[in-house]
Amino acid sequence: MKRSDRLVSLTHYFLENPKYHTSLPYFSEKYGAAKSSISEDLAIIDRVLQAEGTGHLQTLPGASGGVSFVPELSRENGSKFIAELRETLEDPARILPGGYLYMSDILGDPKMVNQIGRVLAAAFSGLAIDVVMTVATKGIPLAYAVAAVLNVPVVIVRRDPRVTEGSSVSINYVSGSSRKIQTMVLPKRSLQENANVCIIDDFMKAGGTINGMVSLLGEFNANVQAIGVLAEADDEEDERVVEHYTSLVKITNVDMKQNTIDVHPGNVADYQ
Amino acid sequence: MKRSDRLVSLTHYFLENPKYHTSLPYFSEKYGAAKSSISEDLAIIDRVLQAEGTGHLQTLPGASGGVSFVPELSRENGSKFIAELRETLEDPARILPGGYLYMSDILGDPKMVNQIGRVLAAAFSGLAIDVVMTVATKGIPLAYAVAAVLNVPVVIVRRDPRVTEGSSVSINYVSGSSRKIQTMVLPKRSLQENANVCIIDDFMKAGGTINGMVSLLGEFNANVQAIGVLAEADDEEDERVVEHYTSLVKITNVDMKQNTIDVHPGNVADYQ
Repeated sequence: MKRSDRLVSLTHYFLENPKYHTSLPYFSEKYGAAKSSISEDLAIIDRVLQAEGTGHLQTLPGASGGVSFVPELSRENGSKFIAELRETLEDPARILPGGYLYMSDILGDPKMVNQIGRVLAAAFSGLAIDVVMTVATKGIPLAYAVAAVLNVPVVIVRRDPRVTEGSSVSINYVSGSSRKIQTMVLPKRSLQENANVCIIDDFMKAGGTINGMVSLLGEFNANVQAIGVLAEADDEEDERVVEHYTSLVKITNVDMKQNTIDVHPGNVADYQ
Repeated sequence: MKRSDRLVSLTHYFLENPKYHTSLPYFSEKYGAAKSSISEDLAIIDRVLQAEGTGHLQTLPGASGGVSFVPELSRENGSKFIAELRETLEDPARILPGGYLYMSDILGDPKMVNQIGRVLAAAFSGLAIDVVMTVATKGIPLAYAVAAVLNVPVVIVRRDPRVTEGSSVSINYVSGSSRKIQTMVLPKRSLQENANVCIIDDFMKAGGTINGMVSLLGEFNANVQAIGVLAEADDEEDERVVEHYTSLVKITNVDMKQNTIDVHPGNVADYQ
C-alpha cells in the first residue's frame, strides 16, 4: 500500500480508537510496509493532529512498544467553542418558568455533545479514570461523549430500579435546591470495587444530585477522580455541597423581568 | 501544505463531519492548494474508505458543487460485528429473573454503542431522516450513535414531564407485554411539524413502547421513516404491534432451567 493510502487508513484507525495502544508490527503486517515507513507515517500524522489542536500520537519504545492516539483540545479550540456556547445560551427565548434554561436542543445535537465531551475529557486527560458515571436522563449523552474520548465504559445511575439490570445498591439523598429526599440506584454488576470514577452531568445548582452520586460511589468503595458539568448556576454558591468540579459555563442572573441571561466561562479554563 | 499533510487533515475533517456538504473552494483556501490537487486528494480518500468498507465521498459537480462523506458499513463488516455480538449475548451469566437478559455492559461501552449505531444508520442511509427519537433511558446512547452518523438531532421521550423543558404533549398507551397503561411525554419545542423521524430503542418485545412513540409522533404530524432496535425477542411475535422495523439480533429461547440462550441475526441483514 502506498504512503498516501496508509495515511488515510491510519488516520481513520487512530480517530476510531482513541487511547488504544497498538504495536508497530501490527501496522507493518496490515499494510505490508517496513517499520521505518510506518514510523514516518506516524510522524506525519502526529505533526498534523498537533498543529490542528486535536491531540497527539504517544509512542512507547521497546519490545512492548507501540503507539496510541491521545485526543486533546487546544486551549484555542476550547475557548472558541465555549465562546460560541455562551452566545447560544444567552438567547432570552431559553428562559423557562422558574428561571430554568431550555438546553435540550444543545444536548440533542450530537456534534455539540461530542464537542462538550472533548472539552471535559481534555481537562481530565491526565487522570486515571476507569469509568464515567452519570444519572438519568440528561447527562447521558455527555457521559458517552466523555467516555468515548477516554476509551472507558459508562454506568448510569437511575431513580428507579429495573428488573433488566439485576440486583442493585440504592441510597437516599437530599436534593440541594428542593430539599426533598430522593433515591438513587446503581446495579451491583455495573461497577467494580475501587474503580476510579469521573462523574458527568449537564447542570449543577447546589450540587445535591452530584453529592448523591458521590455517596453512592462510597457504597462501592469507588474513588471520585473528577466531576464535570456542562453548566453551573452560581446563584446558590452559598449552599453548594460539591467543592471540586469542572464546568464549561456558569449561568448567572436569569432575569425573567428584564428577559436577560448572563453566561460566563466556567472554571474549565483553569484546567487547560 | 504538502499532500501527505492534507490527506491526514482531510480524513480527520470528513470523519468529524459526516453527511456535511463542503465546497471545494473552502478546501483550496484552507490548504492553499489548487482545486485539481484537492480533487486528487479526495479521490485517494474515497478509494481507501471504500476499500475499508467505511463509506464513500459523494461529490456534486457544478457551481453549488462540493463533497460530503457518506458513512457506510460494508456487509462484511456488519456481519462480522453481528456475529461477535451474538457470541457476547449468548453468555448464560446474562440471564436475569423473568427471562430478561443483562445487556447494560454492552450498552455502557461507547465503542460497542457506536458500532451498533453504524449498523443501524447504514440500514437507513437511503432514507430522508430529520431527527432520531428514543424513549428514556436505555435507548439514549444508541439514538445518539445513529444520529451522529446521520448528522441529525436527537429527541428524547420521557415517562414524566420536566420543568426544564417547557410545555409538552403527552399520550397514554398500553404496554405490549404487561398490558399496563403508561404515559409518554415529549416537549413541544423539541419536534417540528411534519418531521421525518427514525425511532431507535435497545429492546423490543411486543413493541408496545415503540407503538406508543408512533402514536405520540402522530400528535406532531410527524412521519415515521424507520424503526431500529438492537435486539428483538421473538417469543411474543403473535402479539407484536409493530410491523416494520430493523433489528441487529433476535433473542429466542431464554431457558432458565437449562441456562441457555439462543441469539440469531436480526432482520438488518435483509436491508444491507
